[in-house]
Amino acid sequence: MSKRIAGPEIERLIQLLAKVPGLGPRSARRAALHLIKKKDQLLSPLANAMGEAVEKVRICSTCGNVDTADPCMICTDPRRDDATLIVVEDVSDLWALERASAMNVRYHVLGGTLSPLDGIGPDQLNIRSLVDRIAGGTVKEVILAVNATVEGQTTAHYITDQLSGFDVKVTRLAHGVPVGGELDYLDEGTLAAALKSRTTF
Amino acid sequence: MSKRIAGPEIERLIQLLAKVPGLGPRSARRAALHLIKKKDQLLSPLANAMGEAVEKVRICSTCGNVDTADPCMICTDPRRDDATLIVVEDVSDLWALERASAMNVRYHVLGGTLSPLDGIGPDQLNIRSLVDRIAGGTVKEVILAVNATVEGQTTAHYITDQLSGFDVKVTRLAHGVPVGGELDYLDEGTLAAALKSRTTF
Repeated sequence: MSKRIAGPEIERLIQLLAKVPGLGPRSARRAALHLIKKKDQLLSPLANAMGEAVEKVRICSTCGNVDTADPCMICTDPRRDDATLIVVEDVSDLWALERASAMNVRYHVLGGTLSPLDGIGPDQLNIRSLVDRIAGGTVKEVILAVNATVEGQTTAHYITDQLSGFDVKVTRLAHGVPVGGELDYLDEGTLAAALKSRTTF
Repeated sequence: MSKRIAGPEIERLIQLLAKVPGLGPRSARRAALHLIKKKDQLLSPLANAMGEAVEKVRICSTCGNVDTADPCMICTDPRRDDATLIVVEDVSDLWALERASAMNVRYHVLGGTLSPLDGIGPDQLNIRSLVDRIAGGTVKEVILAVNATVEGQTTAHYITDQLSGFDVKVTRLAHGVPVGGELDYLDEGTLAAALKSRTTF
């Protein structure tokens, strides 16, 4: 705002809300006003929830997930299969896979992808701890669920190399047509991969 | 999330963030993860800013604006013209007019529009306090900057009635073509109003 129309506390709230992904300067003002109007039902509980998150959230020292416990809920869940480990780039990927509820297994969060130009080498990612986990001998299959980008694939190749000395199967996610997707809108690479990996009907 | 993948504190944060206008369930997860990753730069300051807003924000007893002071910054600003009062439905309208910086005057926030079907009569809005302000005698012009909706116009007519006994000029915002707008996309009502209120070039 060019002109100050409210106390500094409200303007600071708007400025900080504008940094939340999904909100811009304009929607941050709307959000701030809504929060202020619903002070008791929303603003106050949200302030408390955030304060608690600041206090309690930590990175799991085993898998790199974020949680309020270390080791995290997934690492300590006794009903999960220890023999399978899904490697993801980011916690958001772990959450996405968990929402799909596809497999009841363990995870390992790399924290990014190899990107030499940005100064991100193997030491900046959780690759050493991954190798250590595999060296433990319990894991029989590592599923590389990295993004299908150049960086993701480079990282996948590097990890495969690092794990070549261990008795572990390394797999990757299937390429193909997204469920509900229309062929017309798909790129050639995906279509070619989907054709190549066709299955019996 | 169907399956619990993180501590209750994180899930509560996501649930509350999803209630912020502009964020849905999906973007709330993204926002929560971003906030957690930027704990010191964003989550912690935002939690504090919200806590402070909970503590300090109040409704201005003079005009109905929200601020951390009562009377608010606008009501106490000595450089504003006391003779002109802009009546708006909501604080967001006040903020929008202030951003336009069109006039350095005072405001009065109604807190809604008359809507008998929803049980909103004159007593549910800040109309009594508006009449009291006008009765003070300082205000010479009341600009009804209510929305150009049926409810807004009904409210405007009611207020005009209430103020008919006082020596005060009641005006409303001009109807016309929005600046930067294309005639082709405008409704007939706006075009007719713009033609009727045409000015010399």
